[in-house]
Amino acid sequence: MSHVEIGGLSGCVGETVTIQGWVTTTRSSGKVAFAVIRDGTGLLQCVLVKSQVAEEVWDRFQGLTQETSVAVTGEVRAEPRSPGGYELGLTGLEVIGESVDFPISPKEHGTAFLHEHRHLWLRSRRQVAIARVRHEVVQAIRDFLYERGFVCVDTPILTGAIGEEAGNLFSTEYFDLGSAYLAQTGQLYGEAAAAALGKIYCFGPTFRAEKSKTRRHLTEFWMVEPEVAWLDSDGNMELQEQFISYIVARALDRRAEELKELERDTSRLESVTAPFPRLSYTDAIAYLKSEGHDLEWGADIGGDEETVLASRYDRPVFVYNYPKAIKAFYMKENPDDPRTVLSNDCLAPEGYGEIIGGSQREDDYDRLLARIVDYGLDPDAYKWYLDLRKYGTFAHSGFGLGVERTVAWICGIPHIREAIAFPRQIHRLYP
Amino acid sequence: MSHVEIGGLSGCVGETVTIQGWVTTTRSSGKVAFAVIRDGTGLLQCVLVKSQVAEEVWDRFQGLTQETSVAVTGEVRAEPRSPGGYELGLTGLEVIGESVDFPISPKEHGTAFLHEHRHLWLRSRRQVAIARVRHEVVQAIRDFLYERGFVCVDTPILTGAIGEEAGNLFSTEYFDLGSAYLAQTGQLYGEAAAAALGKIYCFGPTFRAEKSKTRRHLTEFWMVEPEVAWLDSDGNMELQEQFISYIVARALDRRAEELKELERDTSRLESVTAPFPRLSYTDAIAYLKSEGHDLEWGADIGGDEETVLASRYDRPVFVYNYPKAIKAFYMKENPDDPRTVLSNDCLAPEGYGEIIGGSQREDDYDRLLARIVDYGLDPDAYKWYLDLRKYGTFAHSGFGLGVERTVAWICGIPHIREAIAFPRQIHRLYP
Repeated sequence: MSHVEIGGLSGCVGETVTIQGWVTTTRSSGKVAFAVIRDGTGLLQCVLVKSQVAEEVWDRFQGLTQETSVAVTGEVRAEPRSPGGYELGLTGLEVIGESVDFPISPKEHGTAFLHEHRHLWLRSRRQVAIARVRHEVVQAIRDFLYERGFVCVDTPILTGAIGEEAGNLFSTEYFDLGSAYLAQTGQLYGEAAAAALGKIYCFGPTFRAEKSKTRRHLTEFWMVEPEVAWLDSDGNMELQEQFISYIVARALDRRAEELKELERDTSRLESVTAPFPRLSYTDAIAYLKSEGHDLEWGADIGGDEETVLASRYDRPVFVYNYPKAIKAFYMKENPDDPRTVLSNDCLAPEGYGEIIGGSQREDDYDRLLARIVDYGLDPDAYKWYLDLRKYGTFAHSGFGLGVERTVAWICGIPHIREAIAFPRQIHRLYP
Repeated sequence: MSHVEIGGLSGCVGETVTIQGWVTTTRSSGKVAFAVIRDGTGLLQCVLVKSQVAEEVWDRFQGLTQETSVAVTGEVRAEPRSPGGYELGLTGLEVIGESVDFPISPKEHGTAFLHEHRHLWLRSRRQVAIARVRHEVVQAIRDFLYERGFVCVDTPILTGAIGEEAGNLFSTEYFDLGSAYLAQTGQLYGEAAAAALGKIYCFGPTFRAEKSKTRRHLTEFWMVEPEVAWLDSDGNMELQEQFISYIVARALDRRAEELKELERDTSRLESVTAPFPRLSYTDAIAYLKSEGHDLEWGADIGGDEETVLASRYDRPVFVYNYPKAIKAFYMKENPDDPRTVLSNDCLAPEGYGEIIGGSQREDDYDRLLARIVDYGLDPDAYKWYLDLRKYGTFAHSGFGLGVERTVAWICGIPHIREAIAFPRQIHRLYP
């Protein structure tokens, strides 16, 4: 059943074709009628002149409702005023599947209602645009890393007791081996792979059983985590700024139409080019205090303060070398200031906050073991991870970029739950 | 800390460079010594002439052990007999990290021992080669689909009670919403996305809590699942044969070196071009019976019989239109023979068995509901899935390709557990 797609009509002007798709809108003057059809690859206006078609076709057309699936036949005409640039002079119309009272009408709906009908809401123009931007971001991530010789290494989701934070874990019974936990990160496995392959990345879903109900949190989200042997913290930030610049440029270049559909102010994205400004944690705290924020050296920087810091720049900003006490056990101690670690966050502008967390990793066996013990973790579970420091230890760094936060920022949408097809939040597991 | 990679030495002949990496092997004649260094991007032979280097460098060299991490400095020379085509005239040697008694020596080890040390075993030449082939397969999958306008839609891992088989599910407690289950497939979500975007794919880890202990089973494995609106079962098989041919050709083209390392007979892969032979289930059973196999129409075709069928061809073979009773509820009934469904498996040659399962989906609301009830599933949990047949139903088809099985076949390795970095089997959750 080969068929012509709306997205591929440019070579069909003057030809008579059949298109299969769904009705989005219809209007009729009594003599001329219009329908906009979508098929996932684009939108196509169909024009029907009563005097030129069989009466049964005209009558059938009057019965079309939103999301009825149809096969429309007619001649393709160039029409610059139409969405997509073409229109169809409709001569034949077949109804494939009816659609009575489609729940998502063009009127406003509440958020809960829309999410309850997410499987149908996905068909709306805005949601289609977001999905295509996300798709471009995902492929851009893969292409950037592939072209630079990074090897994709898929790290496990089901893991023993190992990860970033002891709390916030989803667990499942694993045959006779007790509990398995859903990975919060692939990084530790990525470090093992970096010793084998030099430059690697993992890219998959990650899980946090967090009770956070903010517009920046999901319980299941996708994260890409590059890990590079022989790279230090400075080089890590250089890699990150090149990475983000590439992703944004690619979205601007190839998804201009979708960003327009989303009414995104793309001038705010065009300034996102490397290098990005860099601010030490210590300087960031000093600035925030000078602006009247009530926090002292050692405190974490919250979402609101991130927005304050990021709003000073026209591109993302790095905040680097956080206090050791508020960061993960595997981050390398800063030799110039042992109160801190060689870490960095990358904050997106326009209030989108942290999109990357990265660090140079602790490569000294004894220090790492001490940190594991200090953090109350079980050294036995980390035996294999410690082995990486026992057999030819190596300087290495990496980071994790959250896909939904990045997509939300690029699309300019307020909540990351629209940046994934079927979001998982603490109160949402359906559809 | 910028550094030169072994994989990037072609432009450095005659220059003095420093390389950071790990020692794989060393040998010494007393006057001249050799070490092969790896850094993840390639192998480099280093040559050391005692009379030409400082005594301390010579002495330090004698202490090198397998997997010691080092920085080696010297002049790059073209040397066709060396692995990679270059060698380093070593003048400087710094030991970065010692490696005492690295567990994986060049001697033979047992399977259990190797898997227990998977984090270190990954560094061996064969495992590096497999990882790079897998990486190429993953990128080839993405590129094939991207170039053809498929939109990547990441479907959820955490799901309500919905999936392929009621048993074999991993479950986890999900806040106040009861149990969530780890997805066995993203297909059902993919169908909703296909109605929005036309051609989509999901590609992520999938989970089966199966007690199968065969060389073809993992509890966690990666699967790519394209889903296409307005595609029928025949078109689905055409898509599959183009897809597989592309992936195999890409591996042959870009990973020739790795396939050589794996001693793969690549002539067996060169014949993998579309079209593939197609055999109905009914004909397959008749053939197997004629060959003396003891099975009747209606029985499933097991792994051994798959091998018999596939061994008749020099490329994968489709077996299509299986009995309805042994296939999933969502497959479309065959209008020409209602005992069967419009499904297909794709069997790889050389005993690798099923690498794809695909089908046209049931698009009639009433028939689908009846099947859900017949299979003892809860229609309420499938309400959103049924909605896809209620609002503008559409012919559509799709399939799932297992990454590890495909990689194992292309690499010619006997067990799929080596086709993923950290395999999960019923008795293995570590490292």
